[in-house]
Amino acid sequence: MLSNILKISQDAKAAKKLNPELIDATVGMLHHESGQIFTYQTVTDTLCSLKENEMYAYSPANGTAEYRNGIVDWVFGKNKDRIKNAFQINVIPTTGGSGAISNAVYNFNDFGQKILIPNHYWTPYENIAEEANVGVETFSMFDKDYRFNVGDFRQKAFALAERQKRLFLILNDPCNNPTGLCLSKADWVEVIAVLNDISRRDIPVILLHDLAYLDYHAQGFDGARDIFETYLELDENILAIIAFSGSKTFSLYGFRIGAQIGLTKSKDVMADFCRVGDYSVRARFSSVSRSGMSVVGQIFSRPEKKAAFQNELLTAREILKKRVDLFSAEAEKAHLQTLPYGGGFFIGVPTNNPDIFDDLVKDGVYSITMPGLVRIAISSVPLSDIERLVQILKKNV
Amino acid sequence: MLSNILKISQDAKAAKKLNPELIDATVGMLHHESGQIFTYQTVTDTLCSLKENEMYAYSPANGTAEYRNGIVDWVFGKNKDRIKNAFQINVIPTTGGSGAISNAVYNFNDFGQKILIPNHYWTPYENIAEEANVGVETFSMFDKDYRFNVGDFRQKAFALAERQKRLFLILNDPCNNPTGLCLSKADWVEVIAVLNDISRRDIPVILLHDLAYLDYHAQGFDGARDIFETYLELDENILAIIAFSGSKTFSLYGFRIGAQIGLTKSKDVMADFCRVGDYSVRARFSSVSRSGMSVVGQIFSRPEKKAAFQNELLTAREILKKRVDLFSAEAEKAHLQTLPYGGGFFIGVPTNNPDIFDDLVKDGVYSITMPGLVRIAISSVPLSDIERLVQILKKNV
Repeated sequence: MLSNILKISQDAKAAKKLNPELIDATVGMLHHESGQIFTYQTVTDTLCSLKENEMYAYSPANGTAEYRNGIVDWVFGKNKDRIKNAFQINVIPTTGGSGAISNAVYNFNDFGQKILIPNHYWTPYENIAEEANVGVETFSMFDKDYRFNVGDFRQKAFALAERQKRLFLILNDPCNNPTGLCLSKADWVEVIAVLNDISRRDIPVILLHDLAYLDYHAQGFDGARDIFETYLELDENILAIIAFSGSKTFSLYGFRIGAQIGLTKSKDVMADFCRVGDYSVRARFSSVSRSGMSVVGQIFSRPEKKAAFQNELLTAREILKKRVDLFSAEAEKAHLQTLPYGGGFFIGVPTNNPDIFDDLVKDGVYSITMPGLVRIAISSVPLSDIERLVQILKKNV
Repeated sequence: MLSNILKISQDAKAAKKLNPELIDATVGMLHHESGQIFTYQTVTDTLCSLKENEMYAYSPANGTAEYRNGIVDWVFGKNKDRIKNAFQINVIPTTGGSGAISNAVYNFNDFGQKILIPNHYWTPYENIAEEANVGVETFSMFDKDYRFNVGDFRQKAFALAERQKRLFLILNDPCNNPTGLCLSKADWVEVIAVLNDISRRDIPVILLHDLAYLDYHAQGFDGARDIFETYLELDENILAIIAFSGSKTFSLYGFRIGAQIGLTKSKDVMADFCRVGDYSVRARFSSVSRSGMSVVGQIFSRPEKKAAFQNELLTAREILKKRVDLFSAEAEKAHLQTLPYGGGFFIGVPTNNPDIFDDLVKDGVYSITMPGLVRIAISSVPLSDIERLVQILKKNV
């Protein structure tokens, strides 16, 4: 199956031109109430002030120092010193978070192997795996109370790891796409305990941590970064690869700027990561967006820009919060079940309707649907549409 | 071997900061005499006038109509109508020309197969192949008179095609990187005759035509496009994939915008090309630079912009011509042998010195060297350095 999120989004946009009443809940990009794409003034100002060579020239092969160091400090935040002390770290610039994920899946799996993901997942994971001649296996993301299902994760992880003598896990957290779930720190402690147990059986373990929506956590900047404390317990031989998305954090969707952050306590594992990671970047897309790298690097490395940008992020999170609060209130009134939301661009709505996509379209709602789930991109639905959206969902799920 | 062109370029740049006398002939980007990167006013003006969604949003999955149609018209120029009548055509946007080449090599070779390239080649071809689990085999690019060696090409192509029952050929023409060679129309007639002979033995033939430097042909816009007339003879089952580089044509190096243009007379072959090409874009980098696509699309589709841009290209070619003319005159005076130059960013200088790279660095010249060859990026060497450059080359080759 070819995931068609971008294609469905285009169809929705075309349909909305003909019928402005239509609700387009497909797009994983933050939009203003007016329907205008949400951009950051700090980003625009920085972009407009770039020198020619910071925009038009090729990026340095391994990224600028500002970019590399800035990303590490930004992602780990209050935990950065402890993380930097405990781990070997390397940053490899990629074409967005997708490039980071694609290269990691290709580099760290043998053909025919399977990677482990939750049963609700961003469908391109499956395409990325298939492109790399790799399969997917899933565990149940939720238990019956809609909490993270550590038990099923443990069972599936062990079974797969024992069978193929390798475990490659993708977790998209916090602000999971498509469900909106944020794992608690306690959940992460358990996840890492499972990974450690497997690693101690001399089975290579790779954790690919996709945190595209980190900066839209409802708990704010510091709250989103609590989970990294649990990283400190990672077993020596485990390789963690964080997929960072400049697209989401900076609204630089169309720029294709992201990174792999490799972390491990083992020098050998790090040497492998650097060698193959660097090679793949050059052999797959040669280098990444220079303007994207310049903007992100400058914002990360200049305190006044960083502060201004963090202030704008508060506004972005406030836009999401207002919509989510209204959606939740309306859902409660309408007795529409929703999945637990911890932050990000998406609210998950369970469904038993196999024709849910078409039924919603008939009632004027475009969404991304997957087995058992409707993904509502609250990032692009204005407040004025939410009551109607909830009613249409309630009618069709 | 990991090709390190971008890395050596960075080293050269760092060294030049310490010693401004140093000659940096590594960089495949056009520069003014002042050392400033050459940018096009039409590109900058278009970039600055983009709407937010033409810059920040994700690109449409298959590219905008302006981009897709514009590229076909631009690349084929005076031959566009005949080409459009004769072939099925599809355009797939990629992250620069490199992305186009990487995806094509990955998609159209089985693991362990070999692709055919000339013995002088842009070294990343080898890395791209290795990343795809594919090997390279070479033919002699030149005969003893430094003309294109059709005889050796025919022999190696047949041998490889018979052995593995597939032929995947990469030709970088016109304005070959690294030699500066431009194949004549007569050369292309012969190349295509060989491909047809192989195809008629029921062996699949894929021609990957990398024309990154098309727009810097010394014969100008129309002269560069003479060769496409020879395409018309391509056998029905052959797939030609043109790798187009927005980096070079528009000085949009750091934007990572390019395309695969697939051409074939067979509907089935085209259906395959579209299916796998589209899949790979989504699974490898999700989508490409929106701003790059917007700029290129607008320039291609708006006649006044297109005319202004073509006028600027004349200036760019004039800069190259002056340098090449001076280099040739100095080389003649110094009895330095050079390879035949037909256009583009590079002049090839044959060498027998296995330590040529280090010897040139000792004398203050950074270049890209390969077995038997020094690649001089005349695109970034100002007139004032050329006499000295030729002398240092003469001393060391």
